[in-house]
Amino acid sequence: MSENSYPFLYNCWYPAAWVHELADAAKVARVYLEKPIVIYKGESGKYIALDNRCCHRGAPLSLGRVEGDCIRCMYHGMKYDDSGVVIEIPGQDFIGPNHRVQNYPVVEKGNLLWIWMGDPGLASADDIHDYEPLSDPTWRGFEKEAYLHYDANWMLIVDNLADFSHLAFVHTNTLGGSEDYAFVTNPEVKKLDKGFNIVRWSKNDAPAPYHLKVNPDAPEKLDRCNSVQMLVPGSFFMSTIMAPVNWDPNSENFDGVKQYRNCQFMTPETRSTTHFFWNYLHNYRIDDPTISVSLKASLLEGFMEDKEIIEAQQKMLEYQEEFQPRGLQGDEALIHFRKVFSQLLKEEQENFDFHTRQLGNPII
Amino acid sequence: MSENSYPFLYNCWYPAAWVHELADAAKVARVYLEKPIVIYKGESGKYIALDNRCCHRGAPLSLGRVEGDCIRCMYHGMKYDDSGVVIEIPGQDFIGPNHRVQNYPVVEKGNLLWIWMGDPGLASADDIHDYEPLSDPTWRGFEKEAYLHYDANWMLIVDNLADFSHLAFVHTNTLGGSEDYAFVTNPEVKKLDKGFNIVRWSKNDAPAPYHLKVNPDAPEKLDRCNSVQMLVPGSFFMSTIMAPVNWDPNSENFDGVKQYRNCQFMTPETRSTTHFFWNYLHNYRIDDPTISVSLKASLLEGFMEDKEIIEAQQKMLEYQEEFQPRGLQGDEALIHFRKVFSQLLKEEQENFDFHTRQLGNPII
Amino acid sequence: MSENSYPFLYNCWYPAAWVHELADAAKVARVYLEKPIVIYKGESGKYIALDNRCCHRGAPLSLGRVEGDCIRCMYHGMKYDDSGVVIEIPGQDFIGPNHRVQNYPVVEKGNLLWIWMGDPGLASADDIHDYEPLSDPTWRGFEKEAYLHYDANWMLIVDNLADFSHLAFVHTNTLGGSEDYAFVTNPEVKKLDKGFNIVRWSKNDAPAPYHLKVNPDAPEKLDRCNSVQMLVPGSFFMSTIMAPVNWDPNSENFDGVKQYRNCQFMTPETRSTTHFFWNYLHNYRIDDPTISVSLKASLLEGFMEDKEIIEAQQKMLEYQEEFQPRGLQGDEALIHFRKVFSQLLKEEQENFDFHTRQLGNPII
Repeated sequence: MSENSYPFLYNCWYPAAWVHELADAAKVARVYLEKPIVIYKGESGKYIALDNRCCHRGAPLSLGRVEGDCIRCMYHGMKYDDSGVVIEIPGQDFIGPNHRVQNYPVVEKGNLLWIWMGDPGLASADDIHDYEPLSDPTWRGFEKEAYLHYDANWMLIVDNLADFSHLAFVHTNTLGGSEDYAFVTNPEVKKLDKGFNIVRWSKNDAPAPYHLKVNPDAPEKLDRCNSVQMLVPGSFFMSTIMAPVNWDPNSENFDGVKQYRNCQFMTPETRSTTHFFWNYLHNYRIDDPTISVSLKASLLEGFMEDKEIIEAQQKMLEYQEEFQPRGLQGDEALIHFRKVFSQLLKEEQENFDFHTRQLGNPII
Repeated sequence: MSENSYPFLYNCWYPAAWVHELADAAKVARVYLEKPIVIYKGESGKYIALDNRCCHRGAPLSLGRVEGDCIRCMYHGMKYDDSGVVIEIPGQDFIGPNHRVQNYPVVEKGNLLWIWMGDPGLASADDIHDYEPLSDPTWRGFEKEAYLHYDANWMLIVDNLADFSHLAFVHTNTLGGSEDYAFVTNPEVKKLDKGFNIVRWSKNDAPAPYHLKVNPDAPEKLDRCNSVQMLVPGSFFMSTIMAPVNWDPNSENFDGVKQYRNCQFMTPETRSTTHFFWNYLHNYRIDDPTISVSLKASLLEGFMEDKEIIEAQQKMLEYQEEFQPRGLQGDEALIHFRKVFSQLLKEEQENFDFHTRQLGNPII
Repeated sequence: MSENSYPFLYNCWYPAAWVHELADAAKVARVYLEKPIVIYKGESGKYIALDNRCCHRGAPLSLGRVEGDCIRCMYHGMKYDDSGVVIEIPGQDFIGPNHRVQNYPVVEKGNLLWIWMGDPGLASADDIHDYEPLSDPTWRGFEKEAYLHYDANWMLIVDNLADFSHLAFVHTNTLGGSEDYAFVTNPEVKKLDKGFNIVRWSKNDAPAPYHLKVNPDAPEKLDRCNSVQMLVPGSFFMSTIMAPVNWDPNSENFDGVKQYRNCQFMTPETRSTTHFFWNYLHNYRIDDPTISVSLKASLLEGFMEDKEIIEAQQKMLEYQEEFQPRGLQGDEALIHFRKVFSQLLKEEQENFDFHTRQLGNPII
């Protein structure tokens, strides 16, 4: 497994689209794990995901027309129900058992549509990590949640988020604040069965530039904390605290403390490209819409800095695939995550009939 | 043979260019069956096709200069006669037997230049299907015949033309008229040694939109007939009748009947790209130039609808080459054509020395 | 070895950049012989070339920051000294022996930076051919020396420069003057151990157009001489004389004689792309800056003619790699050069551990 072309885990939920992307009868045509998929909202309100390739001659169903909860291929008019089974062929009565495409489980949670690309028999909506702030009205996020497309393997984005010392150098003027941030005592890494937690305090530090923009009266020094959780395959959740210097983290007194919640989701498109979904929420002055607008602009600026260096990294790695990275102590979380992921991958590959799935043919 | 990368038949005639493309000393530099070719018109009026690659160092002859019926490579000045033999090397008297490039038979018929990419000893101009309307003055076509470039294997375009039920869905508002068109009784398919005929009547149907535009007084219902012939490798001819309801096809009375003639030619450029030549002719009010202009615009609109779905289909098939298409009854003609083509391919591959040809070296 | 994808010689000096490209703290990020390299000028004035890929996670050092003679990766802040050894890791005291990247010898000569991509133990600056006019104040070149990027294997550019008969056809109106130039008596080719010399007199010929532009009073006929030297891997030097008809080349009388000096350097980027560095100098009216401006414009026009035909040639050769070129007498120099080069390549491949180098890992 080379660093920039990690393989896919199938039996897990992936964010596929924000709910707002499917408004007004829009269809989403995206590739997930190298498979072209169409997602649409049926007239009953149900979300449906199917192979984006008509079983007849391979035309994309995303050029088709939604009829009720069905979709009609607009090449020769075959009509599929919401399970992917053909129920009408213009000019022909007979419909065979192979006149169908694969249907994929889709679930809405936290304004996201989650898709399951593996064995549908194993899909349980309970396994989707419910990130509470997304549905908690005391937290305010973006009016429209955000999406970016990356020309990089998703694991390189996971790596990026697994070591926040990069804030000091990549994001000095946007998210970081100063280079001192990289030199703090080693953060606490807690290994989980499905990922890791990191708590990174940076005490008596400059406020992050994005925070200062919406809090121009913030003190010159703050105790800052980023408390991170990363879960396979690529879900990232972060609580951020900007507190007065020497604030007691166990205190119940939140006077002068400001907080943020952040989620980022990496869904592989191909081995070298990734769908990236994100939101950034705050819980103060939530009636003021300008806070969220400013946060989105600031964070986007920072995320574009990540995108630049990660895509450049992808390119560098593509030049020589045998590259052997040299580890740092800050790689502890990254290495644990790759170990967890590789173990899950191994188990899955021993137990799951990939061939059938990779043929792109229906599992019947 | 995967669906979207059909191999090539060499021993047959392919449309290479419209005659008007070679006017005013223009050279045509195109790739046919993955071979770069230059076509030019000698000063005697003769058309000449040669490898577009000087035998010396491989520079393209299409950057060269026509001198009489010869062409001079404008890199180091080698001059080729119309058979591809070098007859002058600046600064050198000796010319060797290998100082030549391959010459390809070219024939003009129906305003098209046809090229033969296979064994020249088998090339007979009599084998070119002469589509009479192209030279019949009672039919009027475009002032300049049309060309499109497809990012798709040519066989996908043949497939498209082998089942007109797609008019109902792809071309509802341009060429089709209504979706009912897809539900007509099965059309008559006649299998030929080298292709197929289809006669598709759609009785008491709405007039096709392109017809209505040039005949705004057309009745609300018509009996419509598309009578199609497809011949290997990729020649398509169609007679279209728009007749009063209940018109007798055996009648000699053409009052109120309007007709069209259409030809479309698919010439493979590569496994995944195609040259597409076409014309659309009518035989009424032929002194009125606006009819042809309107027909060209209407048909082009329709053909761009085809191009969109066929190129999307090509992309979908490229994702997973093992895709197994699921047949419909409407595929009868398509399947017969592929059978005919595959049989010819098999015979040719048993009898023709492809290696020599594919080296791109002269057959001497 | 196909004509358009010649392999690389490692143990030799390659031009990497003009000195002016590194002014104002600019870093040069280029690929040489398929390896991404960063070149920067340390604050001491020293030039430093390193793998453009941090040993930690592969981020490009060219996005980094120069500190003294060191460079800091701006992903996680690792700081490299000028030998490529890591000397600081933020938040970590331990630095291991593999925390380093490869350093490449770089030498400044003739306003060029030369890089050595092979075994550093074999690199001797004395082996760089010192082209005297570049540092001789009686010759005036461009204010900023020139660079072009070619979509072609470097050997095709060497080929171009090995036979000047192409001036007659490619450059008739820019560098050549008339097509007669191709028909002169065969030029003298002298084979060298590391390349060749060619002396090509064209007597009683029209002045070259670029010369006429800066010498509008030049006589209608001149004796012209291009005296060329080509050395492996791809260094080209030329002396050009424009003399009165019947001028004696052995004469010490230079009345009415005008001269030029020209250098061109081809450095492989990949198998199919090339860095091209050049300058064109004159030794008359050197206080007049317009001469050099005019020469640069004229030559660039001619070089773009070369680029067009050579890149087209590359494309033609990519279509069929088995193409067998047919030799001409004018290929004598070209053939000798390829022989010399292939011999050096063979020797090197027998004696040099390419595997280690091609892994992109440090040679320790």
